Amino acid sequence: MLQPYDMPLEQLQNYTPPLSAPPDLDAFWEATLQESGRTPLDANLELVDYPAEGVHVFRITLRGYGEAPLSGWYVRPTQDGPHPGLVLYHGYNWNYEGHIHDVVNWGLHGYAVLAMAVRGQQGSGESMPSPHGHVAGWMTAGILDPEHYYYRGVYADAVRALSWLHGRPEVDAARIGVTGGSQGGGMTLAAAALSNIPVVAVAEYPFLCHFTRAVDIAPAGPYGEITEYLRQNGDPDIERQVFQTLSYFDVMNLASRVVVPTLVSVGLIDQLTPPSTIFAAFHHLGSETKALRVYRYFGHEFIPRFHMEKLQWLKQYLKHASK
Amino acid sequence: MLQPYDMPLEQLQNYTPPLSAPPDLDAFWEATLQESGRTPLDANLELVDYPAEGVHVFRITLRGYGEAPLSGWYVRPTQDGPHPGLVLYHGYNWNYEGHIHDVVNWGLHGYAVLAMAVRGQQGSGESMPSPHGHVAGWMTAGILDPEHYYYRGVYADAVRALSWLHGRPEVDAARIGVTGGSQGGGMTLAAAALSNIPVVAVAEYPFLCHFTRAVDIAPAGPYGEITEYLRQNGDPDIERQVFQTLSYFDVMNLASRVVVPTLVSVGLIDQLTPPSTIFAAFHHLGSETKALRVYRYFGHEFIPRFHMEKLQWLKQYLKHASK
Amino acid sequence: MLQPYDMPLEQLQNYTPPLSAPPDLDAFWEATLQESGRTPLDANLELVDYPAEGVHVFRITLRGYGEAPLSGWYVRPTQDGPHPGLVLYHGYNWNYEGHIHDVVNWGLHGYAVLAMAVRGQQGSGESMPSPHGHVAGWMTAGILDPEHYYYRGVYADAVRALSWLHGRPEVDAARIGVTGGSQGGGMTLAAAALSNIPVVAVAEYPFLCHFTRAVDIAPAGPYGEITEYLRQNGDPDIERQVFQTLSYFDVMNLASRVVVPTLVSVGLIDQLTPPSTIFAAFHHLGSETKALRVYRYFGHEFIPRFHMEKLQWLKQYLKHASK
Amino acid sequence: MLQPYDMPLEQLQNYTPPLSAPPDLDAFWEATLQESGRTPLDANLELVDYPAEGVHVFRITLRGYGEAPLSGWYVRPTQDGPHPGLVLYHGYNWNYEGHIHDVVNWGLHGYAVLAMAVRGQQGSGESMPSPHGHVAGWMTAGILDPEHYYYRGVYADAVRALSWLHGRPEVDAARIGVTGGSQGGGMTLAAAALSNIPVVAVAEYPFLCHFTRAVDIAPAGPYGEITEYLRQNGDPDIERQVFQTLSYFDVMNLASRVVVPTLVSVGLIDQLTPPSTIFAAFHHLGSETKALRVYRYFGHEFIPRFHMEKLQWLKQYLKHASK
Amino acid sequence: MLQPYDMPLEQLQNYTPPLSAPPDLDAFWEATLQESGRTPLDANLELVDYPAEGVHVFRITLRGYGEAPLSGWYVRPTQDGPHPGLVLYHGYNWNYEGHIHDVVNWGLHGYAVLAMAVRGQQGSGESMPSPHGHVAGWMTAGILDPEHYYYRGVYADAVRALSWLHGRPEVDAARIGVTGGSQGGGMTLAAAALSNIPVVAVAEYPFLCHFTRAVDIAPAGPYGEITEYLRQNGDPDIERQVFQTLSYFDVMNLASRVVVPTLVSVGLIDQLTPPSTIFAAFHHLGSETKALRVYRYFGHEFIPRFHMEKLQWLKQYLKHASK
Amino acid sequence: MLQPYDMPLEQLQNYTPPLSAPPDLDAFWEATLQESGRTPLDANLELVDYPAEGVHVFRITLRGYGEAPLSGWYVRPTQDGPHPGLVLYHGYNWNYEGHIHDVVNWGLHGYAVLAMAVRGQQGSGESMPSPHGHVAGWMTAGILDPEHYYYRGVYADAVRALSWLHGRPEVDAARIGVTGGSQGGGMTLAAAALSNIPVVAVAEYPFLCHFTRAVDIAPAGPYGEITEYLRQNGDPDIERQVFQTLSYFDVMNLASRVVVPTLVSVGLIDQLTPPSTIFAAFHHLGSETKALRVYRYFGHEFIPRFHMEKLQWLKQYLKHASK
Repeated sequence: MLQPYDMPLEQLQNYTPPLSAPPDLDAFWEATLQESGRTPLDANLELVDYPAEGVHVFRITLRGYGEAPLSGWYVRPTQDGPHPGLVLYHGYNWNYEGHIHDVVNWGLHGYAVLAMAVRGQQGSGESMPSPHGHVAGWMTAGILDPEHYYYRGVYADAVRALSWLHGRPEVDAARIGVTGGSQGGGMTLAAAALSNIPVVAVAEYPFLCHFTRAVDIAPAGPYGEITEYLRQNGDPDIERQVFQTLSYFDVMNLASRVVVPTLVSVGLIDQLTPPSTIFAAFHHLGSETKALRVYRYFGHEFIPRFHMEKLQWLKQYLKHASK
Repeated sequence: MLQPYDMPLEQLQNYTPPLSAPPDLDAFWEATLQESGRTPLDANLELVDYPAEGVHVFRITLRGYGEAPLSGWYVRPTQDGPHPGLVLYHGYNWNYEGHIHDVVNWGLHGYAVLAMAVRGQQGSGESMPSPHGHVAGWMTAGILDPEHYYYRGVYADAVRALSWLHGRPEVDAARIGVTGGSQGGGMTLAAAALSNIPVVAVAEYPFLCHFTRAVDIAPAGPYGEITEYLRQNGDPDIERQVFQTLSYFDVMNLASRVVVPTLVSVGLIDQLTPPSTIFAAFHHLGSETKALRVYRYFGHEFIPRFHMEKLQWLKQYLKHASK
Repeated sequence: MLQPYDMPLEQLQNYTPPLSAPPDLDAFWEATLQESGRTPLDANLELVDYPAEGVHVFRITLRGYGEAPLSGWYVRPTQDGPHPGLVLYHGYNWNYEGHIHDVVNWGLHGYAVLAMAVRGQQGSGESMPSPHGHVAGWMTAGILDPEHYYYRGVYADAVRALSWLHGRPEVDAARIGVTGGSQGGGMTLAAAALSNIPVVAVAEYPFLCHFTRAVDIAPAGPYGEITEYLRQNGDPDIERQVFQTLSYFDVMNLASRVVVPTLVSVGLIDQLTPPSTIFAAFHHLGSETKALRVYRYFGHEFIPRFHMEKLQWLKQYLKHASK
Repeated sequence: MLQPYDMPLEQLQNYTPPLSAPPDLDAFWEATLQESGRTPLDANLELVDYPAEGVHVFRITLRGYGEAPLSGWYVRPTQDGPHPGLVLYHGYNWNYEGHIHDVVNWGLHGYAVLAMAVRGQQGSGESMPSPHGHVAGWMTAGILDPEHYYYRGVYADAVRALSWLHGRPEVDAARIGVTGGSQGGGMTLAAAALSNIPVVAVAEYPFLCHFTRAVDIAPAGPYGEITEYLRQNGDPDIERQVFQTLSYFDVMNLASRVVVPTLVSVGLIDQLTPPSTIFAAFHHLGSETKALRVYRYFGHEFIPRFHMEKLQWLKQYLKHASK
Repeated sequence: MLQPYDMPLEQLQNYTPPLSAPPDLDAFWEATLQESGRTPLDANLELVDYPAEGVHVFRITLRGYGEAPLSGWYVRPTQDGPHPGLVLYHGYNWNYEGHIHDVVNWGLHGYAVLAMAVRGQQGSGESMPSPHGHVAGWMTAGILDPEHYYYRGVYADAVRALSWLHGRPEVDAARIGVTGGSQGGGMTLAAAALSNIPVVAVAEYPFLCHFTRAVDIAPAGPYGEITEYLRQNGDPDIERQVFQTLSYFDVMNLASRVVVPTLVSVGLIDQLTPPSTIFAAFHHLGSETKALRVYRYFGHEFIPRFHMEKLQWLKQYLKHASK
Repeated sequence: MLQPYDMPLEQLQNYTPPLSAPPDLDAFWEATLQESGRTPLDANLELVDYPAEGVHVFRITLRGYGEAPLSGWYVRPTQDGPHPGLVLYHGYNWNYEGHIHDVVNWGLHGYAVLAMAVRGQQGSGESMPSPHGHVAGWMTAGILDPEHYYYRGVYADAVRALSWLHGRPEVDAARIGVTGGSQGGGMTLAAAALSNIPVVAVAEYPFLCHFTRAVDIAPAGPYGEITEYLRQNGDPDIERQVFQTLSYFDVMNLASRVVVPTLVSVGLIDQLTPPSTIFAAFHHLGSETKALRVYRYFGHEFIPRFHMEKLQWLKQYLKHASK
């Protein structure tokens, strides 16, 4: 298998491209989160009859940023808390029903786990339709203005999910972590950047990093929606605006705000989230304690060995974190 | 090329499956159009500097059903009218910028042409986000309830576009037609069913026909989004609800309301809109004058010979229609 | 998606082809198991440092039929037993390292679980090399004689794994079940047919059923190795011998020996284990309590909804079985 | 999408490889055109019943170089001339019937347009069969000798088409242009190099440029016929002769003879006519006024935005050229 | 592997569709061969330095029908004759250089072998260019008139090759056979139908049989050129003419004229020459002694077991034929 | 066709990476061959009724290293010897039945030819099963220890085949050569390195060269089994051990031991045995007389022109070698 197809590993290990952050990046997010905070969470839990013992399984609904009708799964150990809490973010266009089993398994591991479906995707509704047409999918919805970009709501929702879990009596507010893969990996880092609730983050092959390179280099996957948009809208001003908008959401630009212990994985033959985009974001992370696990023979897929690392990292920095 | 892959031609020619129309189909659409009619069109025209002579080219914006910010192209001959009018509906996830050239060419043929971008797609915004999560694309947005289904707005917008053209002073209100291919072919038939403005319809390999069979038989294309939704949501009640919703939008169920001269094309190796789904809708058309052109060696693609037929049909039943 | 590609569902539901069992089928397996029983199990457990609480995780080695050096994972709840026991069989050419997480999750569900790697595959060695050349893979190893066929050892090992679990003090010998998907689904049914230890079986899209049809109809997957062998060895006598050998291992032929409550899944677009081969085996199952879950929109893949059914079936017939 | 796959854009912008022109290049073409000039054009026009108004549509037949029975479409505005004239050259192995609509559209834009089918392709016959065997297609017909190479006739025919249009009374002989894409783009530049009739040229992703690199780098398309020929004829002398022959037809070698205002397009992910081959030819163009439009996200396909540029360029340098 | 994809074997074994022979079929071929006979063969042999002993290897050139400059290989045993003679016909668009080794191997088997390259293909030139445009390849060259159809020359050349071999002093004129695969299989049967020189024929998966079905059913290969032609030329009159022309060349229509012992092979998963087209031709063969070898697991490829049958058949009916 | 995809030709021509030979490489092979020598050959010949004259064709069985039941074909000229002898090694997972025709053809060329099926593959059995699980195929069987690695037996068997041929009375013991392609090319070089019987070697695109680069760069083929193994077994210690084991079998490391005249071929677009791996091994060959034929337009396939070179090389250095 031709690898690494992107850059040689030696080059990746030193790849720290300049940031593309706009001057008002922090202000943009402060305003967004303030606005988001004004909408009440309005959470509702409904017990699900799941054939497992030792956990309670709920379907949860929640109001997202801009009143989006979010839904998800919440699983907590049956025994008394406080439990360590974990918010799971899922991949792009991923499966809702299947997700429940993963969430239950994390519950069986002793975590109180909230898995919120991303707006528009899975079981969650959207509230802020794109003011202009876009390519099938969500990558280019609202992309002509950071105020309207789809991921503005998504990142804000990621923070709202943390707030809800933080307020649960059975959860230890000082031991809440975030994790996810691909889109969920990008959201993990974004949430760790935008909220001070999480004390640990584990991001598997995070998406949404270093857009300018990703659009050029990714041979497959949702970055291609952006390419398609630029094919359908060939005006150079639009191209500039698109990358301008994305600069507000580029996890690489937000990375320096992440300071908690953070574990990241990358596969050298990953064609959806190219290695260089992940190395770039990783190198800009502000965390003192951080580790990047590199998998030479893996692409955008479940990496069994990393799952072990992830369980271990969460055990060390979350479950058994000194309080 | 293995053909016909779907049914043998002889069988197709007699394929008239029973309708799946719900009892309140007419009531549903009457209510929808009444509601739609309450929103003003609020059209705005902006002249575009297109390097052609003999036509004026405009970018048009319009309010759609539920206030969706629609946009499109309007092209009219420079000479005085009244001109025959034509509304073009486009294919699924299709290209906005490229569309302008087709519209201009129709204008050069002497028609006043309105090409409205479909909500969410191309240059048009959406106004009614899905209250629940769905698969990337638009086929399953709001699919759990006919009131919320994406194509409710789309069909209503198709009728609104007709209303606008009908009110133009340079257009002969008695000579307005509708045409389009694929999604645009389905919209053409839907518009002819739901509005009494058009006096002729030309639908190329129409999409959105005979959903129950299409979902099972289509080897490629957007019907697959419905399959994917049913994979992600395996509850049999959801499956029933999905097909219940679709029955309100199935062009086959609306076909008997179409009474104007209607020309339809079908390619026998079309893998996106399988032949049987089109024959089914065609056989249920209420038009006295109707023709189905069958192309044995063609799939879902531009069929040069049919373009000639289409020009001819519009010339006969629209341009030179006795007023 | 064209479906069902194999037979229409109505036909599948009544598809009960005649068996191809050789007259000495029972004698063959009795002899095999007797011979197998003469080799001691020689099990060895080594504690693994897995970052989970509530279970002990072990690497296990075991002698298989013909002294094959089998290895696998054994996971048991830390609390005192007796626990219900479960043997997991894995898919063809599947991943060893990744398997551990699934096994642990079953342990967290409260089962004492043994996942034995299949000989030659994953972590297990083989002891009985094919006396003749074969196609890459295991499907045609020793295929010229039932005595030497690869799956003779595999089925015998499946029974040996049950014997070992049955003898564990922390396991309730009256509550042991078998489960697996694909090759593991075939082994599940074979084990339930050849051993009286299991009291319940759950087989996901079982492989190794109804070989004569499978070889002709499967568009992809390991049945193709048999086709390839018949391409490389064109002698009609060899073709006859191949199918003669396979008749001893065809799960359809063994199915009438299965009498425990058995749950089976089948996806109608499964291209590796075609639906008709699974319906055929299912219809021949001897169990009074049996159920076949049919998934119209699924192929050879994880089916989230069935996982729920499986957990439920095992909870009912294994975990909470009246003792 | 991995891009640019060929060379980075910065390198392309300075890519001016040395020419491979043989010393007798000019003499070869002078002789060819003189010989061609001795055959009378023998044109014949037959009115076609095309459902458009404002233009007359004809099927034209013409004698080509070496008496090849060429055919094509000729469309002229119905109003009196003189009109600006345009010769269209089409792509390799392209569709004849479909072409008529494009030609009519150019007519509706006010041009008198001749679209000549290329010998052997579409509706035109061939007159000079290859004296030796070749690979399916036309790229290697006669390739062992420049005198016999297929494109000798094609380029000569391209000039003959210009001569015919130049002689039409309704056409302004001082305002004739050439245009086409792919093979037609190569012919556009060749015609502009070999004839002094055209006053403007627009070449979309021209084929037939910089053969030595094209054969090595093009991942798809008709350059592959040359590769296939060299696979079937492995003699190094044949390889040398093939590239020797091609050097007479390489548009890069002819480019310095083009002096009229010339517009060229190139897509950076074009796999049939790789970017570097087009930049190479463009940099060698002799025109004072020339422009290369680069499309980062496009391949070998219709580029809507460039169509606008093309209409504009022809309007400026042809339609409204000062006479 | 899904098989047989075309018809079930039982149905194939009885598949004898009605012929489509035109009334003047025999007259057409009589006239063609008479005309062909008037051109002298003008053969020329040139010794090739091939590193084998026991055979002389020559490059041969020959005048074909209509003066086409044919070339090929001729290999004869070095020892004195008379030797049995064999004419080899090759597959479509096949490799010239590689062919020499096969020819030499047949020479080493004791045959005087002539392998003539087909006009236009491999090393042979063409003399009769198509009077109209066609699709890349040869299938549609001249297809609008049987007089001009490409295969008229090809079949006539096949007979001319036989004539030449028949006149060689070292060849036993009473022991000459014909063989080939695919296009060469079709030519083998055509030559046996049109010439009384061959005393035996072996046709591997013959092409050019039962065109009406082949065009509809073949998933791949050169029959697709006909489909493509009908896509580019949609006039129903042209479609009728195309099949009218093909009826003169359909090996099924010529089959009853074959009376020598004939061996044919067919693979049930052959996608280029579908099984039913070959069964159809075979069932119409006029030979008293004929055999069809059916290969269930093979497609359009070298079938080792059939090569043995072929050597055996030629040994029995050609090499050791009683003189 | 993108080429060369691996390195530019100029770089390949100087590519001589450092060896990875372990210090005990020679000792390992000496011990292996000594142990191998202790098992008697126990050859058995059975005449096959092959329809050719001039040769005797036998099915041969032989005991391999570790008692593996090898089988193969032996073909000798019917006339008296002594004949030059040739051992043929075949490609990975290749066809047994088909091989016989090639072997016969070599016999007709005047060689006494032994084609031994590789253990486990084709008609030969295996005797030394892998002590641990592995990926489907043979590349990773026993890969955790050089003593157990699959190719230990294969290379030893290659030498045993030479020994047997060397002892035949009809064979000239001083004129024995080795040849093969792909896996057979690697075995050819290994046999020439490990045995002093062969006096000439011809290796077509040899496999098993320069593993460390091959695993990274090969886009297709059996090197991928190693990648898959490393995906399934992610422990870095295992990765190190795998490459440690392979270093004993890397033909590049053995190449300096080859001193006979050696001809090698390489195709620049070969995706199974990448060019750089072959150049690397070639540059390390110890032969004074050696030649590498480079085929710019060929991949992993039969190269007609090289077959000529091969016949010539064997004629010169084997058949007509001065004795």
